[in-house]
Amino acid sequence: MKTFFHPDQLLHAPVQELHNGGFVPFAEVPARAAAILAAVGDPVLPRDAGMAPIAAVHDGDYLAFLQVAHRDWLAAGRHGDAHGYAWPVVRRRALSLDRIDARLGRFSMDASTPIAPGSWTSAYWGAQSALGALGAVLGGDPAAFALCRPPGHHAGRDYLGGYCFLNNAAIAAEAATAAGRRVAILDVDYHHGNGTQDIFWDRGDVFFASIHADPRTDYPFFWGHADEVGERAGAGATLNLPLPQGTDWTQYRPALDRALSAIRAFGADLMVVSFGADTFAGDPISQFRIETADYRAMARQIAAAGMPMLVVMEGGYAVDALGANVAAFLEGMGG
Amino acid sequence: MKTFFHPDQLLHAPVQELHNGGFVPFAEVPARAAAILAAVGDPVLPRDAGMAPIAAVHDGDYLAFLQVAHRDWLAAGRHGDAHGYAWPVVRRRALSLDRIDARLGRFSMDASTPIAPGSWTSAYWGAQSALGALGAVLGGDPAAFALCRPPGHHAGRDYLGGYCFLNNAAIAAEAATAAGRRVAILDVDYHHGNGTQDIFWDRGDVFFASIHADPRTDYPFFWGHADEVGERAGAGATLNLPLPQGTDWTQYRPALDRALSAIRAFGADLMVVSFGADTFAGDPISQFRIETADYRAMARQIAAAGMPMLVVMEGGYAVDALGANVAAFLEGMGG
Repeated sequence: MKTFFHPDQLLHAPVQELHNGGFVPFAEVPARAAAILAAVGDPVLPRDAGMAPIAAVHDGDYLAFLQVAHRDWLAAGRHGDAHGYAWPVVRRRALSLDRIDARLGRFSMDASTPIAPGSWTSAYWGAQSALGALGAVLGGDPAAFALCRPPGHHAGRDYLGGYCFLNNAAIAAEAATAAGRRVAILDVDYHHGNGTQDIFWDRGDVFFASIHADPRTDYPFFWGHADEVGERAGAGATLNLPLPQGTDWTQYRPALDRALSAIRAFGADLMVVSFGADTFAGDPISQFRIETADYRAMARQIAAAGMPMLVVMEGGYAVDALGANVAAFLEGMGG
Repeated sequence: MKTFFHPDQLLHAPVQELHNGGFVPFAEVPARAAAILAAVGDPVLPRDAGMAPIAAVHDGDYLAFLQVAHRDWLAAGRHGDAHGYAWPVVRRRALSLDRIDARLGRFSMDASTPIAPGSWTSAYWGAQSALGALGAVLGGDPAAFALCRPPGHHAGRDYLGGYCFLNNAAIAAEAATAAGRRVAILDVDYHHGNGTQDIFWDRGDVFFASIHADPRTDYPFFWGHADEVGERAGAGATLNLPLPQGTDWTQYRPALDRALSAIRAFGADLMVVSFGADTFAGDPISQFRIETADYRAMARQIAAAGMPMLVVMEGGYAVDALGANVAAFLEGMGG
């Protein structure tokens, strides 16, 4: 299976993040990508498909903001990485705002996703890697792997959050839909893919299924509850399967069966898998108990759905085990 | 004019707040109240009117949260003061959440309003001070001063923010409305009173007028824009008059005329004045140029509206000048 990755995806390197009441070292480090590359071998460099497929998912004012945010942060006399401190929790809407802190709040959902000098470039090439891998699948490869870093599934149409800036899975799903495919997104990251859910919330043409830690105890808290099923044309095209902390593969497997049944019932002919290895028992910020060998079984079960598969990298913070976990998953997917 | 204040309002004493990218010393210090007391003289202790008038404005689950938040924070193994790191910016709704960080995000709008051990008690007695001062006005005093600290106007029905936990002005306005008065709230703090606006957003029986720094450059950023006028029964009962940074009394005065005209046109028979002395030229976190003597003129102009006045303390962070600024305002209000 081809891996798509661009070295500029390593540029994004914030120093710290706000978590549980204080600043801690940033968990989504460039070394994550290096560890995965070391295990899966040389990647294919994605071609540059430009802004159009990104702008098909994200709002123009949000994309414009991302490209200037860190420059404007420094211009305002600030130091280090940029993040907000206030958020529009009521009647959020498009607003023309001047101050960088205002725009950071306008276009984000947390204080844990700092914007560093290289963030836009890395996010841009992460999205191109997803599009490159999609191209391989549309070209006939049974499966392809987009080593997206930074990850994407927490980013909405006009907001960043959860280490994510551009929603790589959504960008690929939108492009695949435009190419005539009927797409399901299966999100098996430890955390709920709130951005992906929001992007397709009221659409019936893309199915979104997510298996994740119960948001009553785990980030992103306010999305991913079982009663969230989509609205309007999208009513019923969102499936949330929250699981308790401590879940192991035996408990995970029935939820995966249920998600795959729903995807089959939807009639998908292409699957985008938002894959996070933060379900791993040794993950430093997560609380499931999936073991390395389980990823092989998980991927086999998904591959048995019998359709082209685009695997998009999301989270996974146990850097030492990350290569082995991703390699096991890709091997189960058919190598 | 009587001043209402309870010494337990000094208990709330967070150490630091997130602002412009990092932690800085908390600006809303207990010394603010002490400085005002030194200038205005001995206060009247408010009687305890209980929870009912507070629960008439704030949601029960929010009030329950406030009372246990810091205890739950410590029980989760955290240290120092409590604040969130992720916020429900899309489809915010009532949710049953377990983790303290989740509940902090559910019930707040920023990371700048830490909850400390004494926060609930201080906020509770701040609200009682507002109710005590209202009692004096309803009993025939032409004006009364509620030395509310912590302040209140950024707190919504179910969220804290901007150093505010309970919306003292809204609690008094609601109680006055229940007592049969037709109430207007005039907010002359430097910052927009987003919480007060939200609480009365769709109600036509309470008028809300706010003069404040343009939210394109100043907190709370996402509220207080001139096109926000209320909705449904409240359409037209909200008036926002944003002014640019650098505004002095000459530029401020016409906006105040306009707000007072609207309040007269509404037919108010009691005014709640959310008074912030952070419009002061020397305020460390604000950018207007009102001088101490101007507060006397401002209050005279407001008092000329010729109705009972309840002055509720909001912001003001130049502690050394705060007593003189508040005294000048109360003197202009009729002493």
